[in-house]
Amino acid sequence: MTAPFRTDELPPIAVSLGDPAGIGPEVVGKAWAMREAQGLSPFFVIGSSRAISAVWGGPVASIETPEDATSVFTSALPCVEVELNAEVIPGKPDQEGAKSALHALEMGIGLAKSGAASALVTGPVGKAQLYSVGFTQPGQTEFIAERCGIARENAVMMLAGPSLRVVPVTVHIPLGAVASSLSTDLIRSRAIGTAKGLCRNFGIAKPRLVVAGLNPHAGESGALGREEIDIILPAIESLRAEGMDISGPYAPDALFHEAMRETYDAALCMYHDQALIPLKTLHFDEGVNMTLGLPIVRTSPDHGTAFGIAGRNIASPGAMIAAIRMAEKAAKSRLRNAELTCG
Amino acid sequence: MTAPFRTDELPPIAVSLGDPAGIGPEVVGKAWAMREAQGLSPFFVIGSSRAISAVWGGPVASIETPEDATSVFTSALPCVEVELNAEVIPGKPDQEGAKSALHALEMGIGLAKSGAASALVTGPVGKAQLYSVGFTQPGQTEFIAERCGIARENAVMMLAGPSLRVVPVTVHIPLGAVASSLSTDLIRSRAIGTAKGLCRNFGIAKPRLVVAGLNPHAGESGALGREEIDIILPAIESLRAEGMDISGPYAPDALFHEAMRETYDAALCMYHDQALIPLKTLHFDEGVNMTLGLPIVRTSPDHGTAFGIAGRNIASPGAMIAAIRMAEKAAKSRLRNAELTCG
Repeated sequence: MTAPFRTDELPPIAVSLGDPAGIGPEVVGKAWAMREAQGLSPFFVIGSSRAISAVWGGPVASIETPEDATSVFTSALPCVEVELNAEVIPGKPDQEGAKSALHALEMGIGLAKSGAASALVTGPVGKAQLYSVGFTQPGQTEFIAERCGIARENAVMMLAGPSLRVVPVTVHIPLGAVASSLSTDLIRSRAIGTAKGLCRNFGIAKPRLVVAGLNPHAGESGALGREEIDIILPAIESLRAEGMDISGPYAPDALFHEAMRETYDAALCMYHDQALIPLKTLHFDEGVNMTLGLPIVRTSPDHGTAFGIAGRNIASPGAMIAAIRMAEKAAKSRLRNAELTCG
Repeated sequence: MTAPFRTDELPPIAVSLGDPAGIGPEVVGKAWAMREAQGLSPFFVIGSSRAISAVWGGPVASIETPEDATSVFTSALPCVEVELNAEVIPGKPDQEGAKSALHALEMGIGLAKSGAASALVTGPVGKAQLYSVGFTQPGQTEFIAERCGIARENAVMMLAGPSLRVVPVTVHIPLGAVASSLSTDLIRSRAIGTAKGLCRNFGIAKPRLVVAGLNPHAGESGALGREEIDIILPAIESLRAEGMDISGPYAPDALFHEAMRETYDAALCMYHDQALIPLKTLHFDEGVNMTLGLPIVRTSPDHGTAFGIAGRNIASPGAMIAAIRMAEKAAKSRLRNAELTCG
């Protein structure tokens, strides 16, 4: 860090608990327990302290407002309480837990928007449970975008680990639907959102982007598919003409080894697993999901509720710690580089 | 190695040079130069010694028959000469070079089939150049299969690095054609070929296979695609019923991290990049392509001719060395486990 910065200028980070019956409570508690070893800035959890104490033996202290978190943080995990009208049974999600998770998420968005929290880290939720209590968005990301007044398509999902950042252009669709879902406009839009997000959240004034092809060997000049020629290359060329540092399309299997990773800040991928396979191969326990394009900083650990192992004290807090750290880094970057022009 | 084995019982390994204008000559020479440090058994190259000397300063010795290779090997790279009726200009392939590469390949197959060579390692060829001299197969693998009297679909391509073996069920087709190209029969056939090949070439009596899904999250119970339910699972279940150690379909992005890799001997992947992205992310310079299902042992370094860097002395011999070593290991395994029943 070159710019002078005092961490006490930064409001604490809000962590929404996620489903009380998932591994959220355990990994948040474990992350707090490692706060000194990991050098984490103050954060507080939003959720039911009962759910945390059900699976984690450390100290939890209820707080009234986020600003109380900083002083409490050294001795206990600060918790802004959210009602939970049921007993917590780890691994057994129910509608009351889903309601509690949703309220925590709502509150976290509000606190981050108001500036009372410097960033929002969201714990894992059970989608099936959320749907059963009336949740209508595909996931937390779209819900947060809507609450922030951002069109869903402008909220860009970036996955990041210590040595790799990837942005999938298409996400949760069948593989067979990928080719027909790609367009030059969509790739352009994702690239622009990625470049702007890397600038705002990481202070990279002119990010270096690379773009993967869709087909084996990036189509081999059309012999193995024409999407590179017809769809991907026009997006890259037009963005380059506008001054972006972007190149490709590259053979997808030649983009993620160490020497190549050092040449770019983020890789745009055409589909979910093209992005997630290299990320999780390299950084299985440290993957962070960051939403770019929002007025607030939002990250989440790149894992689910893992109901199957909840309450057994075997969940790794690595991704939660990485998510908190990345949120802190982004919040500081925004503060420090407020004057930086980001596209 | 637990079984007693004297390397001098093994005939030398044949390495076909590949396109004389590619990096084949350089990486073969460099591999020989590292024979002692790498503990390589005797091998000989089949090709034009002029092409090798044009890019590599080490000693090359023409030999008449493969059996001369063993005594020559300590002091020079043994070379069974193949005619080349043109000057070699690294990076500038031509038809004469393609003819020479094809003749070397033909001879290599013949020597491996006869047993004069214990295995065949093929150097990289330029497909466009081969097509221009009348080559009609998609690649070397299909050509070798035909010459060995094996149906093309029974020659299984396996890619391997130090910590991962992958088998793509579909290979060089556009991504948009993958879903419609999958069938339960095809997956079964690839799995059977893989299990048999791992048994013959690596002495693994009952290989542990895992199968990747096609869609994100392996389809999420059908919400993101039905191929897992309709096509992949029936293949796995029928093979399990027949006694194979096979499981899946797994979420493709959860299959390649270190802890998971330790649980299986090979992963069956639904398409080229699902297999090649994790392999090349982890083992970019050490990837080996091995063809299973042939009467001969055949490997090749998992890289192309790289005409762009030919003759500049910057090509890494890592994959060529790995290909020679894997060929040797497989040849020894076949000799040692001749009595093993492999499916």
